[in-house]
Amino acid sequence: MNVLIVGANGQIGKMVVEKLKKGKKHNVRAMVRKEEQVADFKDKGIEARLADLEGSVDAIQATMKEIDVVVFSAGSGGSTGYDKTILIDLDGAVKTIEAAERAGVKRFIMVSSIASNHREKWSGDMKPYMAAKYYADQLLEKSGLNYLILRPGMLENEPGTGRIKVGIETAIRSIPREDVASTIVSALDYPTISRQAVDLISGDTSIEEALTQLA
Amino acid sequence: MNVLIVGANGQIGKMVVEKLKKGKKHNVRAMVRKEEQVADFKDKGIEARLADLEGSVDAIQATMKEIDVVVFSAGSGGSTGYDKTILIDLDGAVKTIEAAERAGVKRFIMVSSIASNHREKWSGDMKPYMAAKYYADQLLEKSGLNYLILRPGMLENEPGTGRIKVGIETAIRSIPREDVASTIVSALDYPTISRQAVDLISGDTSIEEALTQLA
Repeated sequence: MNVLIVGANGQIGKMVVEKLKKGKKHNVRAMVRKEEQVADFKDKGIEARLADLEGSVDAIQATMKEIDVVVFSAGSGGSTGYDKTILIDLDGAVKTIEAAERAGVKRFIMVSSIASNHREKWSGDMKPYMAAKYYADQLLEKSGLNYLILRPGMLENEPGTGRIKVGIETAIRSIPREDVASTIVSALDYPTISRQAVDLISGDTSIEEALTQLA
Repeated sequence: MNVLIVGANGQIGKMVVEKLKKGKKHNVRAMVRKEEQVADFKDKGIEARLADLEGSVDAIQATMKEIDVVVFSAGSGGSTGYDKTILIDLDGAVKTIEAAERAGVKRFIMVSSIASNHREKWSGDMKPYMAAKYYADQLLEKSGLNYLILRPGMLENEPGTGRIKVGIETAIRSIPREDVASTIVSALDYPTISRQAVDLISGDTSIEEALTQLA
């Protein structure tokens, strides 16, 4: 399969790209915003495609030629204002969803955030971000796409353990970014996990076993 | 009919409340955020109900007892940050939509903004606001509610002329707030204008004639 990573220069995005390249099972394409990022990926032997999530749906769609699966792991990040929360985390995500629908993409994997689907758990400075993720997910669920929404817990930079818990969680727990990336990569082999939204935290189950239970 | 004005203390909201009270055809209820605003409306003989758009859907729904029509004319305004754009103009609006669905409200009239439905026309500092209005409208259209979305042009404080143009506009033109308020009030008498979203600017046609053409 040809897999496009939107937000390939982000922390999780980079890991997904590297794992896909190493795995050799699928063809990975990195969608990035800057020319220099295209060059960086090309230097590593990875095909990169240029588009800005603040640009048009057409421009985003142009990166989806012959793409089977889109992974959305982009984010405005903590150092920009709430204007970018609306324009990237919400509008950029929805434009990517629209582009994927138009391009006939077979599957859309969204990296969301735990508790974003529960307004009463939104708190403090993160409220606008949680709202943006919530509405992007809502519009993905209302789209015609075959989707998998993963809502990881608090992201950590520790090495992955390969052991996760997926499903509907009541507690907000954490997960290493590497395990999120591994779960995304493994999920490509479970095409019957369709139109599902699940929480994703560290757990006791291997990624394969956890995904088998969802499939 | 019993009509709830959400954002009754806003510029357009206040005019709608006053016109409904004067018209005596319908019972107006003002939804406001602060106790002192409740008192102000009560002093004028208007029933006011207290709820915060940053609060829960349940609390908003509690203001909708025996309400037939909800008018949403609330807005975070120009003096707050983009966090409020997400939390009021988008999430507050969608919570009101959800509350109206749960409460079995018969009709929802949304005050939106011209060009919010055309991303390519969003510009500058207004982009996040336009995006928030766009997604609130999208989710209203995807709801089960009977809705009328009015997208007024640039709002002016001049007295109303009583002459408007409604429909699908290509030009971004202006309209006095008073004519927007009058259009909302008149629209109550056209219940067959259902599940429609239209632009609203100053024009040559009387409000009644313009609405008759939509009905």
